[in-house]
Order: sequence, then C-alpha cells, then structure tokens
Amino acid sequence: MITYTNPPKSSWNEILQRPLFDVSELESQVSLILNDIKTGGVDVLRKYTEKFDGVIIRDFAVQEQEFAEAIDLVDESLKEAILIAAGNIQKFHASQLPEVRRVETSAGVFCWQKPVGIEKVGLYIPGGSAPLFSTVLMLAIPAKIAGCKEIILCTPPDKEGKIHPAILYAAHLVGVTKLFKVGGVQAIGAMAYGVDCIPKVNKIFGPGNQYVMAAKQLISRGDVAIDMPAGPSEVAVMADHTANASFIAADLLSQAEHGPDSQVVLVTNSHDLVVKVESEIEKQLAQLPRKAIAARALANSQAIVLDSIEEMIDLINGYAPEHLIISMENYHQVAERIINAGSVFLGNYTPESAGDYASGTNHTLPTNGWARSYSGVNIDSFIRKITFQEITAEGIKNLGPVIETMAEAEELHGHKNAVTLRLDEIRNKE
Amino acid sequence: MITYTNPPKSSWNEILQRPLFDVSELESQVSLILNDIKTGGVDVLRKYTEKFDGVIIRDFAVQEQEFAEAIDLVDESLKEAILIAAGNIQKFHASQLPEVRRVETSAGVFCWQKPVGIEKVGLYIPGGSAPLFSTVLMLAIPAKIAGCKEIILCTPPDKEGKIHPAILYAAHLVGVTKLFKVGGVQAIGAMAYGVDCIPKVNKIFGPGNQYVMAAKQLISRGDVAIDMPAGPSEVAVMADHTANASFIAADLLSQAEHGPDSQVVLVTNSHDLVVKVESEIEKQLAQLPRKAIAARALANSQAIVLDSIEEMIDLINGYAPEHLIISMENYHQVAERIINAGSVFLGNYTPESAGDYASGTNHTLPTNGWARSYSGVNIDSFIRKITFQEITAEGIKNLGPVIETMAEAEELHGHKNAVTLRLDEIRNKE
Repeated sequence: MITYTNPPKSSWNEILQRPLFDVSELESQVSLILNDIKTGGVDVLRKYTEKFDGVIIRDFAVQEQEFAEAIDLVDESLKEAILIAAGNIQKFHASQLPEVRRVETSAGVFCWQKPVGIEKVGLYIPGGSAPLFSTVLMLAIPAKIAGCKEIILCTPPDKEGKIHPAILYAAHLVGVTKLFKVGGVQAIGAMAYGVDCIPKVNKIFGPGNQYVMAAKQLISRGDVAIDMPAGPSEVAVMADHTANASFIAADLLSQAEHGPDSQVVLVTNSHDLVVKVESEIEKQLAQLPRKAIAARALANSQAIVLDSIEEMIDLINGYAPEHLIISMENYHQVAERIINAGSVFLGNYTPESAGDYASGTNHTLPTNGWARSYSGVNIDSFIRKITFQEITAEGIKNLGPVIETMAEAEELHGHKNAVTLRLDEIRNKE
Repeated sequence: MITYTNPPKSSWNEILQRPLFDVSELESQVSLILNDIKTGGVDVLRKYTEKFDGVIIRDFAVQEQEFAEAIDLVDESLKEAILIAAGNIQKFHASQLPEVRRVETSAGVFCWQKPVGIEKVGLYIPGGSAPLFSTVLMLAIPAKIAGCKEIILCTPPDKEGKIHPAILYAAHLVGVTKLFKVGGVQAIGAMAYGVDCIPKVNKIFGPGNQYVMAAKQLISRGDVAIDMPAGPSEVAVMADHTANASFIAADLLSQAEHGPDSQVVLVTNSHDLVVKVESEIEKQLAQLPRKAIAARALANSQAIVLDSIEEMIDLINGYAPEHLIISMENYHQVAERIINAGSVFLGNYTPESAGDYASGTNHTLPTNGWARSYSGVNIDSFIRKITFQEITAEGIKNLGPVIETMAEAEELHGHKNAVTLRLDEIRNKE
C-alpha cells in the first residue's frame, strides 16, 4: 500500500483516481458478434460457443434431469449454507417491496403508484474456475419477490458442456424459470434479441468480463435495459484506534483477491493502525491461494491518514466506494453522514464477505464512482412503479381550471380542451 | 386514423410498430460539440450559444434581480394555478419517500436501506415558443423532496438573452439552486463536465430534441447518469360503450398536438365508438391552433377494434404505452391487469392533461416501449438506497460458518479468512 499522511484536499482526487475503465474500444468487435447473433440465430450461437467455450452444444436449455443430477452432487453442508443465505436475502429483499399508498392530492383527485414486476428478466452468471452461485441468489431472489414472470439465466458451459452443480442447485432452489448453457457476448445477444429457445427479455442483470460489459452497454441502446454500468470491485475501510488491524487486513485482502484491478483504500486517523495493518497484510497474504492476484491489487492501493474525522468523511463521500467498512468508535454517527456508497458495513464484526454472501443485502453494487448516482441492485431493479390517477366529477371541477390555465400558458390548446369538454358536460348535467 | 377490426394477434406488433427512434446517427456530430465543451470551457459555451440561440451571453447564471423581475411579470391566475399544481406534485411525491426498515435477517444480523438524495442534479428544460414550466415542477419538486443538495437548471435564452418569466417563477418557487441560460447539446455538456460557473452534476434529467437526447446518451457512458432514454410521446386509450366519444377525441388530439411523430392509439370493443370518435376528431381538430401538427400525427394513428376485453388488455401490455387512459365500465378490474404502462388515467373524468400538469403524478414517463423496463420519474430517480448492515458478535458466530462454507466453495479464501479471524477472536475472548 502507498501511505499518504494528511494529503491536502486538492490532491484527493488524484490519489484516489481509479484506473480508466472504458469498454468502448471493444465496441466494434463486440458489435460484430451481436449483429451475427441477431441475424444468424441458433447456429451462430453454437458457432461462438464452440469458439469461445470449446464445446459443441446441441441443446442450450438445461433439462430437468440435469437439475436432478446436480442436486445430488452438491455437498450437504454447502446446500445448508445456501439455504440460510437465501433465507436472509429473501427476508431483506421482501422487506423492500413498496406498499401502495393512495393519496388524495386535491379533493376528488386520487394518485398512487403500483409496483409491477418486469415481465421477463435475464440473469448472466460468468463462468471460470469457481461457480458464482452467490450471484444466482442475489439476482434471482429479488426477481422472484418482484413477481417477474420469466426469470431466465445464461451461464457458459464447461468443456464437457456442463454447468457447475452449485449453480444449478441455487437456480433451481430460487425459482429460475429456465437456464441456458451459453456465455459471453453471445449470451447477452441471445437474451437481447431472443434466439431459438432463449426468449428476448426486458432487462439483463449480472457481472461479466469487459466483453460482456461492452455487450450490455451496446444492447442497452436498443430496447433492453441493464442493471447498471460496472467496473472493477472496490472496498474502502474507515478505521480509528478501536479497529482491529488483523480484521482490516483480512477485509482489504478479501477485496484484493478479486482481481489485480481491485480497488483497496484504507482511511484512518491513526498512523499506528496503518503500520499494524501493513504487517498483518504481509502475514495473511502469504497464506492465500490467490496471493499473486491480491499482491498486484495491493501494490496500487492507498492508506490515507487524516487527522480529522470530518476530513475522513469528506474524502469517502468524494470517492463514493462500492463497499465501505466503518470500524470506528462512533460508527453510527459516522454512517449518518455517508452520502455516497453502495453498501456499508458497520463495526468490527461485519466483514464485507458477510454482504457478499449471506447477511441479506445485495452484492451487485455500483463501482467506479457510480454510487454517486446509482443504488445497488434491490427490489426496485426488478419492478416498475406504474402511476395511476382517478379523478371524480367533483375532482375535475376543482382542478380543471388549474389545468386549463397551465395548458393555455404552454400553448397546448388540445390539452386544455380535454378538460373544458368535461367541465361543460358536468355543468350541462347539473 | 387507420381502423383495424379484429386483427389477428400475429399482426399486432406490426400494426403498433413505432417509428424508428435512433439518435446514433447524430452521435459523431454531437460528440464533437461535447468534446469542444469539455476542453474549451466557457468561451466555447458562448460560441455555441451565439451559433444556436443567436445571442451573446456574458453571464450564464440568472441573477437574483432577474428572478424578481420575472415574478412580477407572471399573471396572478397562472401563479395561482402553478401553486396548486406544485402542491399536488409535492403531496404525491412526498408520499413516495421510502421509510427505513431495519430487518434482523438472522439473530444478530441487521440490514437496512437508507434513501439518500443524489448530491447534484441537473435539470434540462427545452426552449421554444411555449415555456415548459410544468416540467420545471415535475423535476425540481421531487429533487427537493429527495434532499438533493444542488439542483441546477439549464434552459436556452431567447434572442434577447432572457428566460421566460413563467420558467423563472416556477424554478424560484420550488427551490432550484441555480439557473443557467444555456440550451441544447452545450447545456448537457456543461452539466456533465462542469464549465465555469456551471457545476458538474451526478445525474441529468429532462426532455429535449434529438440532439439533446443524443448528448444525454453519450455523456451517460461516462460518469453522469441520466433519467431514461426518450422517444416521441404516446397515448393509448382503452374504451368501451360507457366511454364518451367527445372526451376521447379530445384526449387523442391533446397527444397528437405534441408533434407529428406523436403516437396515438385507440383500442375498443365498440365499432360504433370508433365512428363517433372519428367524427368528433374532425369537429375538434378544426378548432385547434396546432391543427397541422395534430393532423399529421393522426394520419399515422390506429383505431383497433377487438371483440374481447382479454385481447384488449393483451394488446396494451404488448404495446406498453407511455400514457394509458381506461374509459371502460369496469376500469378498476382492467387496470389491475395492466403490467406495462407509464401512467394510467382511470374513468371518464381523468384526462391525460391532468397528469401532464396538476394531478400530482409525474409527466416524465417511459416512451417507445421502455415502460416494459422503466418507471417514470419518481422520488426513486433522485435518491440512492444505500444498504447498511451491522452484525453483532453473536450474529457473526451464527452466520460466520455459512459465509465460510460459501466463500470456500467459490474459492475465495480471503473472503473466508475475514470471517475466520473474527470467529477466532470471539472464541479466544470467551
């Protein structure tokens, strides 16, 4: 870690500069594949799957029997852990469902919002050596609670044309409607355009490599929405003398092991703590299987010592981290003043990994400073709030003249007339 | 209007095909202006304002005195109407503020979401002959309720370098922080990058022409969010024998007068009604100042007769209109089954213009089929829901092993270790 002691405020932006994450360079390449998928259908899907995943897939849809087989293959202890995590995620996201509040804004004028699930959603789960079943839970559980009618999931097959059993188990558990063995840009294209048995969806969620991100951005210019823009994962830790150096080192390392471009920041008013954390990192790093990756991420990470808590809060709000751990004496008071962050972890016993897996909060969060304008994935991500209004004869008598005056001032006489005709009819009846 | 009687379901998509609304062709042109603004600062802003608005602006910020003068110039009756409309919009949007619900997902594991206003928002209000003060209300009132600290507004000056008094009055009334005399692509660029006295914002809202839309799309690939993609405005009316042909004609015309590309659709189970509506349209159209525009929009509009209410609902959900008026006997029952729409108007006395101005609902709504995945602007558009979690020692003892098991299965040993170290410390203390 590079340590800065009381750097002037004017230098904060530069110190905390994120690496440029711009997928637009990949656009032309990704665009070609997307167009191919759009026009070529299932044969093209097969061609790209052979090319990128090294396997020929006859039937992209996972069959009932494959689910049944997978369920047998997952360790009982993992099944139990997934069940408990799913329960917590379910409880927290169900609590987010907005209730319908019917408001009488003027006498006889009633307005309300009704939350309605997005009809068809597509979830993307990347491949790789480790199965990201936790992301299956994080995306499919709120989709189900929101009432999405079709929840489809695409994930790349391995060289044998199979999906990891833990992914199949998690998807089956939480009610994914259909699962397809397809990954990368071709999966995003299939869900955006509808190919063969893979239906076109209204919104696509989930992480992925730069090509997947570029594909999501491109299709979002058409008629399919996406969850949010994404960049490398980040954690910032705010700590004072009450923090535990060993815990903090572990939290920083758990972020660093995600990838060499992971962002890791420690902000503290204790220079002592930085020294202890550094020494703890050295000790713990040696034990990690992914130490090479973590070491690369740490080489670009910052420890910033600031004398005042005021300044620590300012710096964090300016940086807008994806994850924020607050290990400070008065962490509730500090938390009250955090305005830019994705998910916040309070106190010494709340590691980021709790939120990554099982506390109940979502782990799909805004990176790259997007926490300034985006929320993490939550129940809102899977619903629309349709507004309704109902006006009685009495209501339009009250409010009609207001609408007429405003429409006339905006020179929209048709708008005015839609009110005038109704007022005339009511007067004629009376 | 073109009338279709019981068209087969397979033809619905084609009948309701929207005109292609693709601003990507303008991209290179708009991109040049944006880059100019980014690098050239206030002089370039002045240059483009002279070029596009035909006026040289010294000081882009509207001064206190200009507000004071404007307030005197607005008719008392319009002021009163704006006050009533603002009150309704305030009431409805304030009712949307989510409350904080702290949930104990497992023993000792507490999760909650906290709504926090986006720090800096930029509102864009287009110019033109008529002042769109209603859009000022629709964007600034929820921004204020959400707690946005800076609410800035850009709108193009007229040839005298002035802003319409009604815009200034509305902006002043609802607490816009600062107002700038700048429009078009240059306004979007100024708010995205921060130029001179115009601050960089986190999210940009508001309507505009194709150039403004293209600029919003382009800057949203960087680090500024936008409200939603936008296309031409739309209304669909669902009506049966209980509907009033004259009201419907007026509602269709009020949409048609927006522009020649406005989308206007009537869906009914009564062929009789179509005939009556057509004749009413003819009568009313003749009286409208904007009849040329409305006539062009109507030439591309559809009246669709379907025998069953079932089919009417299916067709509307497939089309996903921005505005939907339901003038039917059992409108509540029909409304229950609408899953894709922006804003819905119920019964014979609820014209769309009520929602455009004064009922309290927002008039910034998803067009072009985006209602399938987007909500209209509402309080959520101006906040982030930051998630918080707090785990007690007891809590991590309960949930820790679950996290360890899952992290290990995902091969993220650093994530596991962050829990293990905490569990060890707790055991050592006991």
